[in-house]
Amino acid sequence: MKSLQIIKIGGNVIDDSEQLSLFLQQFNLLPGLKLLVHGGGKKASEISESLGVKPIKIEGRRITDAATLDIVTMVYAGLINKKIVANLQGAGCNAIGLSGPDGNLIQATKRPVKNIDYGFAGDINHQGVNTSLLTMLLSNGFSPVVSAITHDGCGQLLNTNADTIATTLATALIPHFKCELIYCFEKPGVLLDPDDDTSCIEKLNYESYQRYLANHIITDGMIPKLDNAFEALKMGVTSVTIKQALAINNHSGTQITYQ
Amino acid sequence: MKSLQIIKIGGNVIDDSEQLSLFLQQFNLLPGLKLLVHGGGKKASEISESLGVKPIKIEGRRITDAATLDIVTMVYAGLINKKIVANLQGAGCNAIGLSGPDGNLIQATKRPVKNIDYGFAGDINHQGVNTSLLTMLLSNGFSPVVSAITHDGCGQLLNTNADTIATTLATALIPHFKCELIYCFEKPGVLLDPDDDTSCIEKLNYESYQRYLANHIITDGMIPKLDNAFEALKMGVTSVTIKQALAINNHSGTQITYQ
Repeated sequence: MKSLQIIKIGGNVIDDSEQLSLFLQQFNLLPGLKLLVHGGGKKASEISESLGVKPIKIEGRRITDAATLDIVTMVYAGLINKKIVANLQGAGCNAIGLSGPDGNLIQATKRPVKNIDYGFAGDINHQGVNTSLLTMLLSNGFSPVVSAITHDGCGQLLNTNADTIATTLATALIPHFKCELIYCFEKPGVLLDPDDDTSCIEKLNYESYQRYLANHIITDGMIPKLDNAFEALKMGVTSVTIKQALAINNHSGTQITYQ
Repeated sequence: MKSLQIIKIGGNVIDDSEQLSLFLQQFNLLPGLKLLVHGGGKKASEISESLGVKPIKIEGRRITDAATLDIVTMVYAGLINKKIVANLQGAGCNAIGLSGPDGNLIQATKRPVKNIDYGFAGDINHQGVNTSLLTMLLSNGFSPVVSAITHDGCGQLLNTNADTIATTLATALIPHFKCELIYCFEKPGVLLDPDDDTSCIEKLNYESYQRYLANHIITDGMIPKLDNAFEALKMGVTSVTIKQALAINNHSGTQITYQ
């Protein structure tokens, strides 16, 4: 069974065109089969503001109303996705940009309204992934570049978290590839002290994770990322690494292991 | 050799979400292999205005500066392309949205600066089309939905006329399919009197076209469309029709023939 590297690239790298370009050069050099999932970045908020669409947040979480959905579709599936693909093509990587509705790549369910109505937010699981489209593209030499826009299969676009998309693609593709999942961001990995880049944890297992959580050493945005990581390992993803975007070709970052 | 219908849908139908939805239902019902090329519509101008990016025109022709390129990439490759694809998926058509950089689908050349600098405008010919990607998708049951954004193969996105894209895809695919090219718009076809929808010309050959041109009966935007149409026939496209978007399943419109 062939290996497939599934790389998630986050907002901060996307916002800096020089950093993004350096990252894409590194991505292009990765050997073997590879797939890129990208998030949004600040561009969507900037355009939102210019268009007079105020971000709505409830309990700190963003709500995707109809105007916001249009903006994230424009920015994620249009501007960012096509800039990344054109850049990779220029570097010699046969990238192909896709969003959830394309070839029914990722079918999501609009998040049910309980206490909070998240609007056009899409929840996904591995059963909603069209793995035959991905295996066809990968086996024909293409590197898919996937945006965080999904659809419900009934004509409605939805907004889905990019980390979740990377994890879900990895778990869905387990029957076809040895899936290696790599979350890239601006830090060297999971840090013991967020202000000290040399405090990177080299290996993190589930037991240590629980201890770091209890001691409030791992907090905030890292928690859903690590929950996603352990979930992926439990489902059978071969390896999960959290590392700096510009170091994807090095043996660096935090290796997540279950045991 | 199988037939392939290449349908170009224009701005006025795209602007009206009800008309667009009715058109896509009709498109879904077309038998056999099919491919949709879409233009822009007023949305790009609306967003451009909201963002304070003033359209620049020289001698009546739009100039694509860097800010305008970002906007058309967002609107054409993002919002419109993904809305069309999600809508078709909802109707049961296995659509897949693509722009020029995706899998190197359409490689263009930035228009050389002579008297006018058109900015990021991309000129194309049939040699720049990745026909193997299209034949792979079509033979696997996908209907490509192609936006008017292209790339230069060196990392730069470009803006290309959608009629030209439809014509160029049709001529590029001649070795693989019997290509039927259909330009759809809001009128019933080529009209003798633009204010009288019943004045549609049923069949138009090159000789009559030249006569109508000389007598100023065919004018303005219809001229590049018909020049494209005759060029496509000369290159070996099986048939070219200009018809109303909501009548793509009827034997209506203007049939363009060389003789």
